[in-house]
Formats: sequence, C-alpha cells, structure tokens
Amino acid sequence: MWDRLLTDCHVATMEPAPGNPLGIIENGAIGIQDGRIVRVGTRTDLAGNRAREVLPLGGAWVTPGLIDCHTHLIFGGNRADEHAMRRAGASYQEIAEAGGGIASTVKRTREASEPELLASAAMRLDALMKGGVTTIEIKSGYGLDLEGELRLLRCAKALAASEAVRIVPTLLALHALPAEWKDRRIGYVSMVIDELLPAVADEQLAETVDAFCEDMAFSSDEVERLFKAAHARGFRVKLHAEQLSNQNGAALASKYNALSADHLEHLDEHGAAAMAEAGTVAVLLPGAFYALQEERKPPVQLLRDHKVPIAVATDCNPGTSPLLSPTLAMNMACTLFGLTPEEALAGMTINGAKALGIEEEIGTVAVGKAADLCVWRLESLAELGYWIGLPGPERRIYAGDDT
Amino acid sequence: MWDRLLTDCHVATMEPAPGNPLGIIENGAIGIQDGRIVRVGTRTDLAGNRAREVLPLGGAWVTPGLIDCHTHLIFGGNRADEHAMRRAGASYQEIAEAGGGIASTVKRTREASEPELLASAAMRLDALMKGGVTTIEIKSGYGLDLEGELRLLRCAKALAASEAVRIVPTLLALHALPAEWKDRRIGYVSMVIDELLPAVADEQLAETVDAFCEDMAFSSDEVERLFKAAHARGFRVKLHAEQLSNQNGAALASKYNALSADHLEHLDEHGAAAMAEAGTVAVLLPGAFYALQEERKPPVQLLRDHKVPIAVATDCNPGTSPLLSPTLAMNMACTLFGLTPEEALAGMTINGAKALGIEEEIGTVAVGKAADLCVWRLESLAELGYWIGLPGPERRIYAGDDT
Ligand SMILES: [Zn+2]
Ligand SMILES: [Zn+2]
Repeated sequence: MWDRLLTDCHVATMEPAPGNPLGIIENGAIGIQDGRIVRVGTRTDLAGNRAREVLPLGGAWVTPGLIDCHTHLIFGGNRADEHAMRRAGASYQEIAEAGGGIASTVKRTREASEPELLASAAMRLDALMKGGVTTIEIKSGYGLDLEGELRLLRCAKALAASEAVRIVPTLLALHALPAEWKDRRIGYVSMVIDELLPAVADEQLAETVDAFCEDMAFSSDEVERLFKAAHARGFRVKLHAEQLSNQNGAALASKYNALSADHLEHLDEHGAAAMAEAGTVAVLLPGAFYALQEERKPPVQLLRDHKVPIAVATDCNPGTSPLLSPTLAMNMACTLFGLTPEEALAGMTINGAKALGIEEEIGTVAVGKAADLCVWRLESLAELGYWIGLPGPERRIYAGDDT
Repeated sequence: MWDRLLTDCHVATMEPAPGNPLGIIENGAIGIQDGRIVRVGTRTDLAGNRAREVLPLGGAWVTPGLIDCHTHLIFGGNRADEHAMRRAGASYQEIAEAGGGIASTVKRTREASEPELLASAAMRLDALMKGGVTTIEIKSGYGLDLEGELRLLRCAKALAASEAVRIVPTLLALHALPAEWKDRRIGYVSMVIDELLPAVADEQLAETVDAFCEDMAFSSDEVERLFKAAHARGFRVKLHAEQLSNQNGAALASKYNALSADHLEHLDEHGAAAMAEAGTVAVLLPGAFYALQEERKPPVQLLRDHKVPIAVATDCNPGTSPLLSPTLAMNMACTLFGLTPEEALAGMTINGAKALGIEEEIGTVAVGKAADLCVWRLESLAELGYWIGLPGPERRIYAGDDT
C-alpha cells in the first residue's frame, strides 16, 4: 500500500527516450512511498496498485519540482534605491560613489541580525517556492570575512531546517574583494584558503566552492589557487565565468571538473569544448542579462553543438538580478536567449540537478528519486516558456507532500 | 461607525501635493464605509474615529488597487506553439503560412464555447488579480464578425458579474481584417460602423471603441471613419498607435479626444504635442516590446516634456504579450523603457484610470472613491519597480473587502 498515487495526468519525466526527449508519459501515474517515487508509468501500468490517497489530476501536466541552481538569496536590505537612481539617469560610477553596488549589500548584510536575514530571505524563498521551486542553491558572498561568510552558510542551513525545500549551500567568498582588504588581495585569498575553507569543512556548511572570475572581481590565477585548495579538501567547484568578458574561466573551471560554469555570455569555442569534455554544466542566467540590459547573449548554439548540458536559474540577488520567479526565468531563457521551452524545462530540472551534483537524488521523475513534483494546469508544456509571469504550479509536492 | 479602519501604514494616495508627487502620508490611516473611502489622513487625524473592524497593517505600504488599462484577456487557445516555433528558428512568415498569428486566435476563439472562453479568461484574470489588479480593461477583437464581437463583450460582462474586479469593456473590431473580408476592406469597416456599433450601443456592452492603426491592420482613413461614427453615437475612442511605424495615429486619436493612444514606440513630437493638447493618455506596453524583442522604445522623455500622462498596462494577449503580472509590467516599464518606479506606479493607478475615463471613481486613495487598495509588505515603494516577478500584494482590497 503506497502513500499516494497520482493519476489522470501527463508526466514529463525528463528521462529521455528515443524520439521522446522529455520522456513524456501520456495518461500517466506516479506512486509515492515515504517521500520517494516508487513507480512511474501509464495509468494502465499502475492500475493494480493501491494507495492510501489516490489523487486524480484531471489531465494536468506533472514535471519534476523546479531546481533553482544559482542564487544569492540571503542578503541584507535591497538595492531598489539604486535601481531607481539608474532609471533617473545616474551612472554606475555615481551610484558606486554614493556607496552603492555590492559594497552596499555587504554593509547591510553585516549590519543585519540573523533573524532579519532569515526573515527577508524567507520572503524571497516563499515567492520562489510558490513558483514551483523544490530545490534551491544559496551562495554566501555578502559576508566577505571569516565570520560573515560562515554566518550566511549557517543561515542557509537554518532555512533548510524550517522550510519545505531542499537547500544546497555554496561558499562564494571570492565574490568581491572587501574594502578592508583593498591593498592586500593576496592576503584575502589566503585567509579564504587557510581559514575559511577549513572552517566550512569542519562545520559541514557547504560541499561546493564558487568564485567570480572577472576583472572587477578575481583573476584566474587567484581562482586557481582557491580551486586547488578546495579540491585538496574534497570540495567540488563551480565558477561565475565569462559574464562581462572572456577570462577563460570556463576552461579553468573544467580543468577542476567543475559542476558548472555560470553566465557565459562571452564563452568561446575553446571553453565550450573544455566544458563538454569535463561534463561541466552551463548555467544560463537571463535575469541578470535582462536587469543589466546586456547586449551579448550566451552562445546557445555553441553549447548545443558541443552537447554541453544547459541549466537555467534565477540568479536571485539584490544587484543584478532581483528575480523572484522560476517560471519567468524559463520564459526569459526562451525569449532572451532563444532556448526552446523543452530546453528551459530541462534547465530547471535535470540539468539544474546536474549543476548541483545531485542528479541521482532529484531532477527527473524516476523510481528511487525524491518525490519533488509540480502539477501544472496547462494544455501544453510549451506554455512554461510562453507565459510571461506565469504564477506557480497548481500543486507543489515536496518529498511526497503537498506544501 | 465605519466598516473598516486601516491603520499603521504608509499610504501612497497618488494625489500629488507640493514636494510630494505621490501624495504620501506616512503613518497614515484610511476609513472605509459601504465600499468607499470616507477618510484618509495620518493616524493621528483619524484617531477619534471608530470602525467595526480596525486593521493595523504593521507598517506596510498601501496604494490604490492596480489598474490594467489595456488587455485582450478573452481568447480561445493560446499561441505557445508559435512561441516554441519561433525559438526553434521559424520565421514569422513560416508561422503565418502554418496558419499562425492572429488568424489562429480568431479561429480558436470562434471555435470555443462561451464557458470555455470564460474559464480560460478567468485563469488569466485570477493571475492578474493575485498580482494586485482591481480594475481591468478587456478588448474584443478576436471575433471579427458581428456575433463574434458581441459575444466577447458579453463574456466580459459575465466575468464582471462573477469576479471581484472592475471590468471595463472596449470594442476593438478594427483589430485585424478577417480572412473572409480580404477583398472587401470597405465592406468590413461599414459592417462595423453600420451594424456592430449600434448593436453594442443598444445592448450597452461597451462605451469605448478602439482600433489598430498600422500597415498590417487598418489605415488612418479607415480609423477616422470609425471614430466619426463612434463619436456620433456617444462612444469615447482610443487607439493602438505608432507601434511598428509612425502612422500619425496619436494625432488622429487626439483629434477625436481619445482617452488614450497605446504602444507609441514610433511617436514623434507632433503626436506628443497633440496628445498633450487633447489630454490623451500615453499607454506604454512593455510586455509586447519584450515578447517581440523590439529595438525601438517609446519616447518617454518626449512624453515627459509635453506633460502627457503615462499609463502602463500588461497588454495581456496570446500573440505579442502573454503577460500575466502587473508588477512585472511595472518592472518592465522601468527596466526596458526607463520609467522611474514612481512613474510606473502612477501608470498603473491614476493614469490607468485616466486612460479609461474613470479617474473620478478609482485610481487614487481619496475620499469618495471606491475602496480598491493594495497592501504591500515592502520597505519602499521603489521595490514595485525593482523586483522582477514580484508576487502580488499581501492584501488586495476590492470595494472595501479583502478578496
Ligand atoms: Zn551569481
Ligand atoms: Zn493591444
């Protein structure tokens, strides 16, 4: 006797079959037991099974729960004032001189109490969860000192304990050089490697390390120092790469078998080939492209040609992508970057899971995986890429339960 | 004894005062009786008043309910398939040859039963209402024959009767030339003028007439014929103008004292001056600009220079703007068109009301107006333009009641 049997639905399992790239099962059914998927098939296949609760879905579509594999969810304050200043004609330079930019978020994050950080992050998380997110990655990166970075990762852990969502924390200490280390770049990187990494490992606060490789952030040499140390301690790595210029970050990340390289507007063929070779996922972040009103799009066809898996995420952050909707991230990936709706959906399910290294646990509707599911009252899956600002799914099922 | 007293809130009345363009009342309070606003002031001003229900809002912001003054909400089917075809590389021409474009929506609208039309429109309306919309304009324009256009306006009336939202219907018969009139353009316009207009007037189905003035739609001569006839029957007019090219539509609309001219990407100074003179509102539709990935933006500074009131709307429609979120329309107006958050908020409140000719009834928080209000759990109003995909207000009050 199963716990639940979902029936009268079409299932996009996201397990490709010949001629059926999304692994669609029409007139499907799903058995759930102890928070896991125990059977997936046609309604007829599962007709002989019994469950405590049978849930006929009236012909709705079922997909894996959405995975937002790149966010900076936890921060103090917001930057609505800067957004308004830019609209009123202020330049980035003027905003920075007025104390704006990432430094202002670091300041407000440091000033905020832990309950304040948790409360504001929970409001954003709530919006994303209503949108269908069942797994979210959360990066540190607004603490930028030993205690500040640890505190953000502990906040992520606290959110994971209180909310019905899977949270994957990532250490992003090489996000920006904090002002107090301005003339001691090497010293900051050393502090991260020698003090922060061991502390994160000891306290088991994250298993992945990220960095921002860009002229305004950290050089590829600095990133490589970090990646070497991270590897030695058993961390996986990922990288903000090729967003504003080509720093050969994707190739560097691939050299360290990165889970993902993210942004990639300036990726070249060499980088794409390296990613394909290493199995590194390309995480596209159309919210930042939109908010910054960038011109250069990531080379989607190059990624397809090299068979690099493409993920899509919100990049939810206060400066460059205050995006609160995963369905809108899918629409933007289609509208702005030219992904097909199927690619966008794969980008927020199976490929999002790969970008987090947990594709054995989530990302498809398959026996043995967690029963994280979205039920969509739509005629076709293509509508997930089509509607602009679609509210979330009719039902969001997390570890087998409606939430 | 009032029905309700909202207190412990900041109110953006949208009634400008010297040095206070949004008419903000900090620590404000609002008295409501019989669905109308009976008092607005500071908490202290209203301290002596009593109400059956006192509602402390914990420092939230209160704005007028949002007004979506330009939508094509009621239609059959959707065009997700075309959206997907475009992403997969199909040209507009190929899509049209495959039976796509507006003709496909007309076909599916005509095929749909009235309950089907109402059910699908209600799902979209529900999304917009959750987003904070308390008044919505709905255009006909997918019937394109006598009975079909009347049927859409009757559907709008039926929705108005069943949903907690103010609906303003508009006759848009000159939306596209239906295939069956292909070689009889004059005949179609005559049918609209001689048969449809009187029928709409008799049945009191709409008080406003709209048209689409563009090479691919109707010429300014054809539009003027319609406007003359509409004026003679006491209709107000508005116009889809200057979206894809400059047809001097804004000047034509102004000549007939149009409530609004909408889109306006190709508006010139002559048109802006004419609009200012006539008091015609400029309705900006960033969702269509976004979905079509247009390059040319409406001349916002020109509108400001001429003091033309600017409204913002979703343009919710299946082809060029499948946008379901009024907060996203405000964000897009800021991000894509450079409006300030204050302008975007005015665009979906007082100026939306002006674009519908009902600014005496709604659009500001003022004594005597309908108590249509949104309560936002935000630090600052600027966040309404800042967040991308912000869910709706914490509370949506329609005619005095929570909905
Ligand atoms: Zn990022
Ligand atoms: Zn329109």
